[in-house]
Amino acid sequence: MDVFFLGTGAGVPAKLRNVTSIALKLLEERGAVWLFDCGEATQHQILHTNIRPRRIEKVFITHLHGDHIYGLPGLLSSRSFQGGDSDVTVYGPKGLKDYLEISLKVSKTYLKYNLEVVEIEEGVVFEDNQFVVEAKLLDHGLPSFGYRVVEKDRPGTLKVDKLQALGVKPGPIYKQIKEGESVHFNGQLLDPIDFQGTPQKGRIVTILGDTRPCDAVITLAEEADLLIHEATFSEEDSELAHEYYHSTTVQAGDAARTAKVKKLCLTHISSRYDREGGERLVQEARTVFPETIIAEDLMEVSITIEKINQT
Amino acid sequence: MDVFFLGTGAGVPAKLRNVTSIALKLLEERGAVWLFDCGEATQHQILHTNIRPRRIEKVFITHLHGDHIYGLPGLLSSRSFQGGDSDVTVYGPKGLKDYLEISLKVSKTYLKYNLEVVEIEEGVVFEDNQFVVEAKLLDHGLPSFGYRVVEKDRPGTLKVDKLQALGVKPGPIYKQIKEGESVHFNGQLLDPIDFQGTPQKGRIVTILGDTRPCDAVITLAEEADLLIHEATFSEEDSELAHEYYHSTTVQAGDAARTAKVKKLCLTHISSRYDREGGERLVQEARTVFPETIIAEDLMEVSITIEKINQT
Ligand SMILES: [Zn+2]
Ligand SMILES: [Zn+2]
Repeated sequence: MDVFFLGTGAGVPAKLRNVTSIALKLLEERGAVWLFDCGEATQHQILHTNIRPRRIEKVFITHLHGDHIYGLPGLLSSRSFQGGDSDVTVYGPKGLKDYLEISLKVSKTYLKYNLEVVEIEEGVVFEDNQFVVEAKLLDHGLPSFGYRVVEKDRPGTLKVDKLQALGVKPGPIYKQIKEGESVHFNGQLLDPIDFQGTPQKGRIVTILGDTRPCDAVITLAEEADLLIHEATFSEEDSELAHEYYHSTTVQAGDAARTAKVKKLCLTHISSRYDREGGERLVQEARTVFPETIIAEDLMEVSITIEKINQT
Repeated sequence: MDVFFLGTGAGVPAKLRNVTSIALKLLEERGAVWLFDCGEATQHQILHTNIRPRRIEKVFITHLHGDHIYGLPGLLSSRSFQGGDSDVTVYGPKGLKDYLEISLKVSKTYLKYNLEVVEIEEGVVFEDNQFVVEAKLLDHGLPSFGYRVVEKDRPGTLKVDKLQALGVKPGPIYKQIKEGESVHFNGQLLDPIDFQGTPQKGRIVTILGDTRPCDAVITLAEEADLLIHEATFSEEDSELAHEYYHSTTVQAGDAARTAKVKKLCLTHISSRYDREGGERLVQEARTVFPETIIAEDLMEVSITIEKINQT
């Protein structure tokens, strides 16, 4: 589970930062990549990575500002052109369907895969046996969602070799041990702990759309392993941030601290800040939340698995 | 008058060539830039040039395939964001209006300048005292236009200094000389030739949308100073070219020869050809039309003024 930043800028593309897109790489988990937002030239950024467009399974759009969606028709078209044939689902605010339909229709683009567009409301927008994705509305002047991606806890895998060495054949005993029951076998008491691998605690990544500080940020970010929070402006530009419905570095840090996240990553940085300016931004956030980093285009952050202590 | 190639690829962006866009730089002529097509990330390509988006006065779209239009909403938005406030007119096939309206509407983009979208038919689509732009339908499976940009001939400017040195005051005599009449003044016969600068012949640039070979190509290109013609495929892939409504190198060369153009520039090159492959493409076209070059991204071609011989 890795987060790969395809674009980390705000509003307009610049040489240092492209407009917003984030890839959540779930290659080990499900052989798939999920995109969060898709600003113009996201597919161009992907050309410089090892991400295969055909692996993109889901796209979550936070809000419909151009710097978050104008790359979507091109990405979806190229994915088809390059042989992608598995289904894709795109989630996002109302209006997304019209935009994609018209864009694909006028350009006579016929996708070779099934595209589903889901215009979402607050709540659980996706769930399967591995993940739950929950969305909440933020505060950005138009509907802007934050997404909380929760990986479900995984039980340890059964140590089949060890059971077979004792002569236990596949069948009801396997099931009992899997479910944590002690079992009598050949006059021996089998303790399930001895035959189960270590369970893994599911990870939590929170990826927010553009927003002013608000309660939904805290709810979505609660105890996340990684919070990806916009920081369009520095603290001294907090009036601008408020006026344009954005957040500052320190506001992002405050949210991270309140929500007790493990790590904060700032992104959606205004093009007014150069590389040095970016360094100052991250220092500002660290005054309130030390575990802060700042995203750069083509940067990857890994979210490691935490083993659950067995007592 | 310079042609600047912002994107020279076909179908999908690749590292070597971005999707299609061509800037016709008319800075000396009218302080303006005209764009022909605007594939995704055209505004990103512009970041690497000295073209100012605010200078873009007109955009001519050849056809609505995604690789020719998906960069337009972003370019128009950024032009506004970056302070562009002069009017822009976009010309192109039916459907363009819906596409732009929806794209700007869902993204809540309010342009700070007046945008006019003109859905064109064949014929003269623009004319003022400097230029005439004529469009004709090509053969591409969906409506694809070629544009013939004709600069009007310019009469030589009046040599006012020389007239004043003879004591001729501004008035009717100036007008007569401007219109080529001989004039008696103070017992002297003034020959208009002596008091007029050299007239300039207008230049002709023909920029085509994607097309199979067809008569309209020849009509649009007739005696052009520069013909910009797609050459998506090499001669050996002529069946593919036909199937996908494209042209080969040799077909482009044939058209250039038949239309008696001065120079041919190949563009819209399939990503199957690498840099060396491109060299082979241009050699193929030169077998039928020697004055051929091949476009590269960020390449500029100047079209020089030809003085009319005065006899
Ligand atoms: Zn944004
Ligand atoms: Zn094309």
